[in-house]
Amino acid sequence: MLRQSQHEIQIATGGRGFYEFTGDVSALLRSAKIQTGQVTLHVQHTSASLLIQENADPEVRRDFQKFFARLVPDGDAIFEHTAEGEDDMSAHIRTALTAVNLTIPITRGELALGTWQGIYLWEHRTHPHRRRVTVHFIGE
Amino acid sequence: MLRQSQHEIQIATGGRGFYEFTGDVSALLRSAKIQTGQVTLHVQHTSASLLIQENADPEVRRDFQKFFARLVPDGDAIFEHTAEGEDDMSAHIRTALTAVNLTIPITRGELALGTWQGIYLWEHRTHPHRRRVTVHFIGE
Amino acid sequence: MLRQSQHEIQIATGGRGFYEFTGDVSALLRSAKIQTGQVTLHVQHTSASLLIQENADPEVRRDFQKFFARLVPDGDAIFEHTAEGEDDMSAHIRTALTAVNLTIPITRGELALGTWQGIYLWEHRTHPHRRRVTVHFIGE
Repeated sequence: MLRQSQHEIQIATGGRGFYEFTGDVSALLRSAKIQTGQVTLHVQHTSASLLIQENADPEVRRDFQKFFARLVPDGDAIFEHTAEGEDDMSAHIRTALTAVNLTIPITRGELALGTWQGIYLWEHRTHPHRRRVTVHFIGE
Repeated sequence: MLRQSQHEIQIATGGRGFYEFTGDVSALLRSAKIQTGQVTLHVQHTSASLLIQENADPEVRRDFQKFFARLVPDGDAIFEHTAEGEDDMSAHIRTALTAVNLTIPITRGELALGTWQGIYLWEHRTHPHRRRVTVHFIGE
Repeated sequence: MLRQSQHEIQIATGGRGFYEFTGDVSALLRSAKIQTGQVTLHVQHTSASLLIQENADPEVRRDFQKFFARLVPDGDAIFEHTAEGEDDMSAHIRTALTAVNLTIPITRGELALGTWQGIYLWEHRTHPHRRRVTVHFIGE
């Protein structure tokens, strides 16, 4: 019979950058003992996002950071919302261009991720933050 | 025991801009009486999208609008698909860069949104439209 | 009573471009015999993405391709990660700007898609690849 299980992961970021937490979700999945199903991840913030991307070569994450710094620059002259710092409005837009929730199938007790896929919290603010991700499993 | 419940929300837009409907989803959740679970939202259109973003300062939405107007300009000379107006192809691309579906966990009978997170329909066409969002709850 | 059903779709791509597979998901849905519920799609790759977009006019897909070629150029001088070819890092970024998973409600035995919505695998690499999409149904 289908059942569900809900958890929270907290991630202390050291400022802008990628924080992989695939292992934390896998550990929760093992304790939830779901063989087939799905997991939904939701980050409860508007200036940090979730990204599934290559977890092999660190160059990839550096290039992501450089590309987004050019695409959505901090302190863009177009921005009216500047009271919370030069990196705030750019952080909101980078969040909108990626995702705040993800749903991943579960197959034979494992996340159905491809060989190179890792799950990242992408912190878009320059200062450290504590970020909360809700983790909701459904399956059997 | 897990159960589900499906609904439709219709949003009459006055043209390009943000239309918050967090309250409509919360009202459906209260009537569905789900304490723990998740809700999936799906917008049935290709030129309007769903966005979870800050619902405090209206400057944020104005900056989003200005940023996307520059990133994906109406009537871009690159566009071949112009028969439906200068704002049509830009609307499709803005939709692709954001999201047409979202899945949000439900905790203690409430949407598991962060303090500043609101759910918006983002209308990308300049003329008014009637937009349909399917709302699907699973939980108990 | 709620139940689930999981499948895999393989898509052989002929290189960069859009591959519609709405019909494959609908065929699986008919065999799964779910009347009300939802389906989650997850592509197990970091250089191909999922997109729900207009399936009427082929101009729309050509414009998407041209727009993304300009927004995220192959062989951008900013990229450090070049060992796997000029189209590799651009493929990762295009994937991040769109989506690797989608969740779509099911209504009266059909995908709750709008009139013009089709489900596409968007191949971002220039060479042909075999792509795997996990398909997970929940419903009754």
